[in-house]
Amino acid sequence: MREVIKRTLPYKEWDKNILVEVKFGGKMIVSLCQMKVEDDRKRNIDKAVKMIKTSVKNNSRIVVLPEMFCCPYDNSKFPYYAEQAEESEVLKAMSKASKEEGTYIVAGSIPELSGGKIYNSCFVFNPEGKIIGRHRKLHLFDIDIPGKITFKESDILTAGNEITVIDTEYCKVGIAICYDVRFPEMFKNMTLDGVKMVIIPAAFNMTTGPLHWELLMRARAVDNQVFVVAASPARDEKASYVAYGNSMVVSPWGKELVRAEGEETVLHCNMDLMEVEKTRKELPVLNHMRKDIY
Amino acid sequence: MREVIKRTLPYKEWDKNILVEVKFGGKMIVSLCQMKVEDDRKRNIDKAVKMIKTSVKNNSRIVVLPEMFCCPYDNSKFPYYAEQAEESEVLKAMSKASKEEGTYIVAGSIPELSGGKIYNSCFVFNPEGKIIGRHRKLHLFDIDIPGKITFKESDILTAGNEITVIDTEYCKVGIAICYDVRFPEMFKNMTLDGVKMVIIPAAFNMTTGPLHWELLMRARAVDNQVFVVAASPARDEKASYVAYGNSMVVSPWGKELVRAEGEETVLHCNMDLMEVEKTRKELPVLNHMRKDIY
Repeated sequence: MREVIKRTLPYKEWDKNILVEVKFGGKMIVSLCQMKVEDDRKRNIDKAVKMIKTSVKNNSRIVVLPEMFCCPYDNSKFPYYAEQAEESEVLKAMSKASKEEGTYIVAGSIPELSGGKIYNSCFVFNPEGKIIGRHRKLHLFDIDIPGKITFKESDILTAGNEITVIDTEYCKVGIAICYDVRFPEMFKNMTLDGVKMVIIPAAFNMTTGPLHWELLMRARAVDNQVFVVAASPARDEKASYVAYGNSMVVSPWGKELVRAEGEETVLHCNMDLMEVEKTRKELPVLNHMRKDIY
Repeated sequence: MREVIKRTLPYKEWDKNILVEVKFGGKMIVSLCQMKVEDDRKRNIDKAVKMIKTSVKNNSRIVVLPEMFCCPYDNSKFPYYAEQAEESEVLKAMSKASKEEGTYIVAGSIPELSGGKIYNSCFVFNPEGKIIGRHRKLHLFDIDIPGKITFKESDILTAGNEITVIDTEYCKVGIAICYDVRFPEMFKNMTLDGVKMVIIPAAFNMTTGPLHWELLMRARAVDNQVFVVAASPARDEKASYVAYGNSMVVSPWGKELVRAEGEETVLHCNMDLMEVEKTRKELPVLNHMRKDIY
């Protein structure tokens, strides 16, 4: 069943042909791998591949990994784990897994070495194992709340310069990484480019997570009437940076469809892409934008 | 004490002079009047004035009334209640109350007749009783969810063409009306113009309210690191349009400071405007915007 859908409904036709769309029903499964990340590249790769296999057994079409899924989220670790895309062990393993399992993989993010700089980069693989998109985190996370959390990505990382939208056979998908979620302009830009889903590998912490994680994921979904898929590492109380977890999928109406807590787990979300059109018909927010004013 | 602060700290100096700012402490009280609106202009005016007096007794500096506080929220009523600004009984009463009580009034909204058109307009009065701002709802609310709610403001009302920011002696204040809250661009525009507070007279309903009211009020506060003050009519189960209520104030960190349920009430919120700078220092979202990209 998965093969039939995947091979016979390339995005362009599927999106334009209402008969095919109705037959297909717009339904698909996306999986979120809430991995506990260790200080060991090889072990992280192995675990990611295991979780991808679990996802595909559950008929997942798109498997999403968290931000820095193969490297502790720690400025002191980024240079050590950084790899050039062409030679990356992590990316080779993801290419192999996507081809063998026949699934899209949104490979969280890795510290990507390029031209002497390190980017926080998300690579996307199609079911043939090819890289079809790369998003370099556009907004670097610099926070300083005395007594709670201080982290300055910009000490080590370089920001990307592009908004990233990829074509899949199901719909156009926007990619954002973690702190990018605080910038509604980026999401509206993707939405006007036609995305129905935004995938966000992310790692909020125990200060910003409880206050803002759900709020911002749901807000971006409702502002744009898109699905939002947010994948976090599992919570590791012993890590220098404790991720909030709470990987989740939000519907275009802002409803939480699946959600984890802090544990290591794989979530599967059955989503109906037709909900995007339905929501936009009921409350035509995008048509009501005042492009003459702002 | 109130008089001293009000008369000696005009906004421009206050904002620029850190010594004065520290002395003042940035603290002030804003009140939200969650009125049960009736089908009787005179009775609505009397109730609004009574609530304004209650607010000022509680040392309120800015009193906020809800959307359509003198007119049922009903397309069939708007033409009947519409008034030209210059001759409006409602606005005369608000001018008198602001002068007598020595307070700013953000007068929710009225159906404003102008050039043969009706706008959903918010007038703002200073403590001398003068109109210092007028916001005409920029986005008209057209919704059609079969079996739940259908409302089409655009059948009767005309949209405004301006984003509205007013100067007060405390800070710059942005004004939005209800459905305007779904458009993040409008709020970012106000924020870049220097507002520290956005006041939103609004009337969500029993379908959109539980799902989106808190979400959107908190999201706009967090996106822009401003105070959001949202005033709704009280819930009237007998009305043709049942308002959600839940008037609330949100801090620049997204915390709920005060909140009503459906009841008729006046809320007083003690806010510290210095929290805006503090939040923006801890997490400099506005400095991290990529104006080169979007």
